[in-house]
Amino acid sequence: MGLRIAILPAGTWGTALAVPAAAGGNVVRLWRRTPGWTERWDRGHPALPGLRLPGNVEACERLEDAVAGADLVVLSPAGAGLRATCRLVGPHLRADAVIVTVTKSIEPETHLLVHQVVGEELPAHRDRVVALSGPNFAHEVAAGLPTGTVAACPDLELADRVQAALMTDRFRVYTNPDLTGVELAGALKNVIALGVGIADGLQMGDNARAALISRGLVEMARIGRTMGANPLTFAGLSGLGDLVLTCTVDSSRNRRAGLAIGRGKSAAQFVAETGLTVEGIATTRAAWQLAQKLGVRMPITEAIYRVLYEGLPPLEAMARLMARPRAHELEEVAEVEGPIG
Amino acid sequence: MGLRIAILPAGTWGTALAVPAAAGGNVVRLWRRTPGWTERWDRGHPALPGLRLPGNVEACERLEDAVAGADLVVLSPAGAGLRATCRLVGPHLRADAVIVTVTKSIEPETHLLVHQVVGEELPAHRDRVVALSGPNFAHEVAAGLPTGTVAACPDLELADRVQAALMTDRFRVYTNPDLTGVELAGALKNVIALGVGIADGLQMGDNARAALISRGLVEMARIGRTMGANPLTFAGLSGLGDLVLTCTVDSSRNRRAGLAIGRGKSAAQFVAETGLTVEGIATTRAAWQLAQKLGVRMPITEAIYRVLYEGLPPLEAMARLMARPRAHELEEVAEVEGPIG
Repeated sequence: MGLRIAILPAGTWGTALAVPAAAGGNVVRLWRRTPGWTERWDRGHPALPGLRLPGNVEACERLEDAVAGADLVVLSPAGAGLRATCRLVGPHLRADAVIVTVTKSIEPETHLLVHQVVGEELPAHRDRVVALSGPNFAHEVAAGLPTGTVAACPDLELADRVQAALMTDRFRVYTNPDLTGVELAGALKNVIALGVGIADGLQMGDNARAALISRGLVEMARIGRTMGANPLTFAGLSGLGDLVLTCTVDSSRNRRAGLAIGRGKSAAQFVAETGLTVEGIATTRAAWQLAQKLGVRMPITEAIYRVLYEGLPPLEAMARLMARPRAHELEEVAEVEGPIG
Repeated sequence: MGLRIAILPAGTWGTALAVPAAAGGNVVRLWRRTPGWTERWDRGHPALPGLRLPGNVEACERLEDAVAGADLVVLSPAGAGLRATCRLVGPHLRADAVIVTVTKSIEPETHLLVHQVVGEELPAHRDRVVALSGPNFAHEVAAGLPTGTVAACPDLELADRVQAALMTDRFRVYTNPDLTGVELAGALKNVIALGVGIADGLQMGDNARAALISRGLVEMARIGRTMGANPLTFAGLSGLGDLVLTCTVDSSRNRRAGLAIGRGKSAAQFVAETGLTVEGIATTRAAWQLAQKLGVRMPITEAIYRVLYEGLPPLEAMARLMARPRAHELEEVAEVEGPIG
């Protein structure tokens, strides 16, 4: 039995997601803000060459035509557009619609996670948010290459519904009740990816990269536990999986920014020269502020913060990381018992 | 205060370890089996170009000269040489010596871990074994590039002693009480690295590689828990860290073997043509036998086993992995409560 699935905006990832969403016979409706886009639409996306979506995917000129009656509403804006997208969608949502989010960010200033922002903007749907996150390059999902991802919601019945709607023999969806952990993992991995880029830019070697990834995950899990997440989530697809993807493939924007910074550019120079939005730069500040507020030690995040925002030379930052006192590997994850979890 | 540290045999990794071992002013003694090797020794190793070890590292012609009086005895043979090395060392050990192992294998037939083999051969020292394991390329440690590693022993006082002896500002040692977990992680990561090589050889893409690494760690943690290990160990340096290193760097032998198999060669052809010892091939069989004995689901290990030992075509094996029933991400780790842990 097909569902009605709205995806908006139909950017690169939103459009790629229409491939598994449409595979099971669902009716999928896409929306973009650009007026007249449906007339020029070629059933694909400029960033996904070769993609031609099937007939059960429709392009909508008006947002309400996509959202009204939809069983699942996939919100796929960048972090900065999340509140605005919620406000556009709100008046047209079915009461029993499930909201699927794919945004990977922490809100600046408020330090709210994605489901918390959605909960503020769409209070009637605050318990119906499922985060979809994992090591997912859009062009590979669009091309039908094998992919694993996570659908996270404390209400596992809703996560199961998203899994059933999107899973195909190429797009493997795992459910996880740990919404906070999955959202934190997706956002914080961009911080560590920046750090790994910096280390690679300094030519610190493969051992250092592997150590930064491992120890970065430890501090991601540590703040996660403090916020009520399950530390094992960070060892899963949305944490380690996405981190590995982002850290080892040069096309990641966060990694590219880190590489440039490690070679002597400032973050501002990189952003100005490339015109790219590098989410990890803002997330580093939010994460470091959050760590201080919660009293959680995050030495790698702190080092990256000092490089990005206080002009600490990258080589000096990495030397400080190595010179810390001797430590135990496991006890560190558990040592801070936070106010929430 | 310097310690006396014996390292044997002084292969590539044993020789590289002499760099941090000597940095703190310890007296380090190396031994190799080759008669007359000390006369030709150039304070380095052919596989570590440019290395010139300092004067407090000595080359010993006779094994007893290296071992007698040593506070720490580092055993660095390949898995196949472990028992023989223990037998050579046994008669010369101080009663209070600490045994440091760096071997990453599971014994074929017996399925014993490294510390269990050492315990059988050196019963008086069975509780004095510390495993040293992590994402450590020898040439980078020899070159003084930043590196993180784990010293694991249930007796944390012994792990602390190894940490104190080896830690430098470039070689960062973390302690961990989970000896079983650290040894399993080091051995099993070679199995997953083979699988990742196969997927890359099939050109399955970056999403698939990241998913295999993540889901591979889940099944490593699952059998680890059954054997009494802490699942979080597998998310640390000796698990995920070493796996990332092995899976993303083409020079890894296990990965290279997997790549060749994914492109259509058999494991036997690869070994015959390259003359390399690929530990992951034997470990795959041991791990799959162990999983069946303990009743633990390890679908990725099973798929690799069937490719290596039963001629299942790699593409067919990967298709089967993707076609499994829908699953939860976290519950799988915990679902099997085994007979030991």
